[in-house]
Amino acid sequence: MHRVISLTTDFGLSDGFVGTLKGVILSINPEAVIVDITHEIAPQDIEQGAFLFAASARFFPPNAVHVVVVDPGVGSTRRPIAIQVGEAIFVAPDNGVLSQAVADRRQDDPGASVRAVHLDRPEFWLPQVSHTFHGRDIFVPSAAHLSLGIPLSALGTRIEDWIQLASASPIRQEDGSLLARVRHTDRFGNIVINIRAGEMVGWDLHHTTIHIGGLTLHGVQQTYSEVASGELLALVSSNGDLEVAARDASAAELLDIHIGDRVLVVP
Amino acid sequence: MHRVISLTTDFGLSDGFVGTLKGVILSINPEAVIVDITHEIAPQDIEQGAFLFAASARFFPPNAVHVVVVDPGVGSTRRPIAIQVGEAIFVAPDNGVLSQAVADRRQDDPGASVRAVHLDRPEFWLPQVSHTFHGRDIFVPSAAHLSLGIPLSALGTRIEDWIQLASASPIRQEDGSLLARVRHTDRFGNIVINIRAGEMVGWDLHHTTIHIGGLTLHGVQQTYSEVASGELLALVSSNGDLEVAARDASAAELLDIHIGDRVLVVP
Amino acid sequence: MHRVISLTTDFGLSDGFVGTLKGVILSINPEAVIVDITHEIAPQDIEQGAFLFAASARFFPPNAVHVVVVDPGVGSTRRPIAIQVGEAIFVAPDNGVLSQAVADRRQDDPGASVRAVHLDRPEFWLPQVSHTFHGRDIFVPSAAHLSLGIPLSALGTRIEDWIQLASASPIRQEDGSLLARVRHTDRFGNIVINIRAGEMVGWDLHHTTIHIGGLTLHGVQQTYSEVASGELLALVSSNGDLEVAARDASAAELLDIHIGDRVLVVP
Repeated sequence: MHRVISLTTDFGLSDGFVGTLKGVILSINPEAVIVDITHEIAPQDIEQGAFLFAASARFFPPNAVHVVVVDPGVGSTRRPIAIQVGEAIFVAPDNGVLSQAVADRRQDDPGASVRAVHLDRPEFWLPQVSHTFHGRDIFVPSAAHLSLGIPLSALGTRIEDWIQLASASPIRQEDGSLLARVRHTDRFGNIVINIRAGEMVGWDLHHTTIHIGGLTLHGVQQTYSEVASGELLALVSSNGDLEVAARDASAAELLDIHIGDRVLVVP
Repeated sequence: MHRVISLTTDFGLSDGFVGTLKGVILSINPEAVIVDITHEIAPQDIEQGAFLFAASARFFPPNAVHVVVVDPGVGSTRRPIAIQVGEAIFVAPDNGVLSQAVADRRQDDPGASVRAVHLDRPEFWLPQVSHTFHGRDIFVPSAAHLSLGIPLSALGTRIEDWIQLASASPIRQEDGSLLARVRHTDRFGNIVINIRAGEMVGWDLHHTTIHIGGLTLHGVQQTYSEVASGELLALVSSNGDLEVAARDASAAELLDIHIGDRVLVVP
Repeated sequence: MHRVISLTTDFGLSDGFVGTLKGVILSINPEAVIVDITHEIAPQDIEQGAFLFAASARFFPPNAVHVVVVDPGVGSTRRPIAIQVGEAIFVAPDNGVLSQAVADRRQDDPGASVRAVHLDRPEFWLPQVSHTFHGRDIFVPSAAHLSLGIPLSALGTRIEDWIQLASASPIRQEDGSLLARVRHTDRFGNIVINIRAGEMVGWDLHHTTIHIGGLTLHGVQQTYSEVASGELLALVSSNGDLEVAARDASAAELLDIHIGDRVLVVP
């Protein structure tokens, strides 16, 4: 059955793990259309996985099946789960890695029903289940069966209490400023700050100041070309996050900044 | 509609940008067959992008749609364009990154008509266009619509003046020698020089000398096995470029050579 | 014709080589479903290629066509070959890189017929064959034609004597202990040792000792969660190999271990 299955993992591309996942999927649903979101999530970094997955998942067909495997608890008692929002289905370990994407999907489709199951029916897994590679043995076979149209209820017991990641929101201080932090730096050295555009509504963005890495930036710009080559600027990213970038250069390198570093933003 | 769409970008594979592009394509054309050429073009390196894209694009089905996003000018006034040569369609920012591939396609299919448009019809873009991610918002949606068979003329205004990258040809000196440079080093440490086999027609390749990195190589060989393990040799690459390689070793490391370094080739 | 073609190479993802392979395949069989196993085999490392390919290939549909290009002998007289086991077809240079996967396939399907050919019919290659990129010019075009259902016998001359890689088995010593070595370290820092679970049948795994990197580990555990965070343990991997891992950490870094290092395992 022709249906998109997306994959997001921390498996990397060197070891063949991702090829194995795809072999398993195509053995169950030969017509699945498999799309990699990324396999370079930092090993076991649930928060980064949740962020990068959600930023990409919004742009997929609404009936896609999404698999996210960032799973520090593999082999322990953490549950494998699936959450369905309207037609979209999300499959992952129950550790919060789906929080942002499920919340986004509910926001985009407010009337959609939401159901979740504990994936506890071994007949939809591989016959032999290892203790260390549930991506191959449980998550991906479950997703492949779901992509065939088998209903969610067949794959597991209904649950209501899946784990929600505590939102990585900034702290709003008494003077109205936001105490924030760096949540991601991308390949181009753009620095993503955990402030959504919606948290700056009503601000005079021309006079907002951003204190980051010992420097102060004045104003939130529209695009890179508003500053000279090599210069730093703040802007709202294509994902709707506050971002610090440098034109034709890496802001992360210029500022020597890392994930988790603190940022103060004053309206 | 079943049609190949190739992707070449400088987005890397870590951030989920490429997964996002694919989600957008499949939302518009669920039957597109998406193929990555490479996403590891050095950030904003138009010349490297043009070279690597052209070397690969020649081997695609003649009706493929190709998207190249190496776009230092995103957010400025540079135009998004599409060029059609026969059945093949190329989509990119108007910065010369298509020059080599379009020239190759015209050479392979001399009778083909050539048309180009400025992609200026927002109804074929995503509804919201960011200032920093036109790959997602303009280039890929345009390509996906073109892959459905919508004619080029529907997507934009005809243009004749797209940017051609000044050819990175070597300088032919009075004595017939070629003053060249290194245009790429690959994963194996092979050094690609900006001399095409066609520029050495009529030479006695057994007596050609290549001066590179302080060393002199004598003769252009046929294949690696003509020298001992670890030894350097010059040969014509599988892409038709003059190349310096080392058998079972990295020529780029042995010679400590980098892109842009000068090379002198004497017939 | 809808059929899976897997690709395993040492080409990396930076240079566009892999995109070229896919363009060639889709030009011959537009309906092929192409899956990457990995392209990050260490350059020309046949043994690593054989190991990683076999670990993944077992999970593919039984009628898949598999292409493996790790080819230090390109341009020399080594033969391009194809081996068919039941419905599965393997295409590679004749250097042993298929040994493990073909052996696994024969074990999984003992009644299957096994045939091999020397790929010596240029009509199934690209029209022009380079001396240095047989992946593009010979291996992948041959695989694409095979994926269309053209019989193996049409593509080459029957052979019986393809190269088998000497098994990288451990040495069983007089006292019953196994003198082994490290055959792979993965992205998570897990250390794969060249001992299969089947070689430890009848052992009391709770009292087995593993001497590795100057340390001694006691017992083979079931899963990571049996030790505290940061601690080392031995276990049987999801691929059935003896493995040394560290919970929430990299065992390879903790032990400063590399491929080829010696390991002593005492029942």
